Amino acid sequence: MTAAAHLLTLNAGSSSIKFALFDASGREGALPVALWVGQADGLGPGLQARLQVRDRQGGRLHDAPLSGTQATHSGAIAALLDWRAQHCDDTPIAGVGHRIVHGGAEHTHPVRVTEAVLAELTALEPLAPLHQPHNLAGVRAAFAAFAGVPQVACFDTAFHATQPDVNRRFAIPRALHDEGVRRYGFHGLSYESVVAQLGTIDPELPGGKVVVAHLGNGASLCAIDAGRSVATTMSFSPLDGLTMGTRCGHIDAAAVLFLLQSRGMTAAQVTTLLYRESGLLGLSGVSSDMRALEASAAPAAALAIDHFVEQVVQQIGTMAAALRGLDALVFTGGIGENAGALRRRVLAGLAWMGLDAAATAAPGPRLTTADSRVAAWVLKCDEEAMIARHTARVLRH
Amino acid sequence: MTAAAHLLTLNAGSSSIKFALFDASGREGALPVALWVGQADGLGPGLQARLQVRDRQGGRLHDAPLSGTQATHSGAIAALLDWRAQHCDDTPIAGVGHRIVHGGAEHTHPVRVTEAVLAELTALEPLAPLHQPHNLAGVRAAFAAFAGVPQVACFDTAFHATQPDVNRRFAIPRALHDEGVRRYGFHGLSYESVVAQLGTIDPELPGGKVVVAHLGNGASLCAIDAGRSVATTMSFSPLDGLTMGTRCGHIDAAAVLFLLQSRGMTAAQVTTLLYRESGLLGLSGVSSDMRALEASAAPAAALAIDHFVEQVVQQIGTMAAALRGLDALVFTGGIGENAGALRRRVLAGLAWMGLDAAATAAPGPRLTTADSRVAAWVLKCDEEAMIARHTARVLRH
Repeated sequence: MTAAAHLLTLNAGSSSIKFALFDASGREGALPVALWVGQADGLGPGLQARLQVRDRQGGRLHDAPLSGTQATHSGAIAALLDWRAQHCDDTPIAGVGHRIVHGGAEHTHPVRVTEAVLAELTALEPLAPLHQPHNLAGVRAAFAAFAGVPQVACFDTAFHATQPDVNRRFAIPRALHDEGVRRYGFHGLSYESVVAQLGTIDPELPGGKVVVAHLGNGASLCAIDAGRSVATTMSFSPLDGLTMGTRCGHIDAAAVLFLLQSRGMTAAQVTTLLYRESGLLGLSGVSSDMRALEASAAPAAALAIDHFVEQVVQQIGTMAAALRGLDALVFTGGIGENAGALRRRVLAGLAWMGLDAAATAAPGPRLTTADSRVAAWVLKCDEEAMIARHTARVLRH
Repeated sequence: MTAAAHLLTLNAGSSSIKFALFDASGREGALPVALWVGQADGLGPGLQARLQVRDRQGGRLHDAPLSGTQATHSGAIAALLDWRAQHCDDTPIAGVGHRIVHGGAEHTHPVRVTEAVLAELTALEPLAPLHQPHNLAGVRAAFAAFAGVPQVACFDTAFHATQPDVNRRFAIPRALHDEGVRRYGFHGLSYESVVAQLGTIDPELPGGKVVVAHLGNGASLCAIDAGRSVATTMSFSPLDGLTMGTRCGHIDAAAVLFLLQSRGMTAAQVTTLLYRESGLLGLSGVSSDMRALEASAAPAAALAIDHFVEQVVQQIGTMAAALRGLDALVFTGGIGENAGALRRRVLAGLAWMGLDAAATAAPGPRLTTADSRVAAWVLKCDEEAMIARHTARVLRH
């Protein structure tokens, strides 16, 4: 691989593709910085599709609607490549890295996608029916758009493969565990990107006990000991754990059975209820967006924020117990990086654990006072940089 | 009410009735001590029914098979009363107190059972289908056996009515919460009986932050602040929370949906799986009984114990976070009171929180060293005494 090559990262959801372009000559050490980033969103019938690209300072490079066949996953990728060509960039793309939500029990590292791998990943779709099919649609679109260019799958589950067996299991019959009903954990690329930055804020932290709070529309916590995942709040699916934008987080399995047996709901209706109509949206009746809730005067909006904060505090307690102690807490993700008032409430709820944030309203990266026994930080979630690094490594080997 | 009267407590399960007799002149303060206790078990077709009664020192007063119509809930109560009459005790029974698993959102205190109350409690059966119908069968049998004697319902949910709103809710649409899909919590009579004893071990504890671990075939934790429940691990049903004998405890709701949608299981099959075939039994494939697992050389038995210990440690972290600190941990219940090796493993996992048990293998009541920042204790679970006290109070008012 020469310096004159680029890597493209793709993160395909149901109606959007996020992407970023990196120089392929990535050194180890600090995370690579994207040349440009952007997204195509509103993909699908009845939506307003748009392609947006920003430079590494956040300046707008491109912003235009997509129409007709462009308003699909494969059409949006073609439109992106057209824009790149017009942008006078003919540097070859040496590889495409994909964010894939589920690698199952087998894929514990990034892997070059072959037909056989694609078949394996497709077989995992029932484990993540709301995410995996869209991720794989992105892979298939990239295969068509980049003939002969290596495609690399990077898994949100893979980072958690280091967890002790006991934290990977539900208390169910072993046969079901062996057939895949287990705790996988997600947001692994985000957690890895935070781990990659720990040494830049404190040279002790890469070897310490750290809870990372990835708080966004999806939200989870990870207990990390010496850089390795020990436990996490999402489990079999991205539904479990914290209160999220529209997902319920932790709920009694018996409540699902009650809705089926006593309310006559179908499994599909319960799926829609718990994934799309619950969380902050369900509690508040106002919005799934934390910013909208913070701006709202509705008592139910305040209740939804209270619930979110309480679950973050309580489940940080769970994660600290899994670690048998805590050296640092790191916030990341859209809410974690930006919602200062909410972070301060979480920190106040953790004062008993040795976090002293009383005297500081610091915007970051350090949120606690200098002599706080446990430090709190805010770091940028950079899944794209992690995908680029993984992709470069796979291509080198 | 005069001193020459007794109170009977009944705790009716699917195939058993536990009972105890108390003097009705119960003073406030220390918990009352039963005159005798016992159980009828093996009730139902195809089982070996037996009636056993022990005195307050544990000595056997009666132990005989029940046959024919005696091997039913009402038959067993009649047999008990026959035995009592032969035992030459004709002191009048002034009231019968019942353990009822579910009081719903309305019944936050013990209540005298009228026809209207019985109808309300029957309407709650869908919320606890595996427990409530049997509890109410016991009430109906007692109505028949004790004509004109007051019956008092004491609820396992009631102790948790003091929890803050945010800890009573799942993150689901408000309408479902209002219709009863909420966190209730259970084992309340056990927790109350422990709270009633806290002052006897440390005069500071009734005002302190205490986690009580009720560990038995069913198991849960309760976060108690100044005697009031703040949070608990069981939620909508007694299925949620800790790993139990045959119940799964915490599991992702999406795993239930997966079993329904991708495995073609029915809701009834999933109910049986998660309530009867999971927990220690499912993990080990050996037994639901902690004593059998501790005696087993099977690696899966050790894994099941590991899972139980890990979940107790992690969820104590959750409860301590809900309390914003911890002054003491109290073990109770069959496992909590007797499994010393298991308790020591839990305490070792909590050393980071300030529990120092390293230098002590004390059998109780104090399990930690004298200068441990957080103290651990073992106390007897005495639901019957709590039911007797509640029943006496209701009858006085």
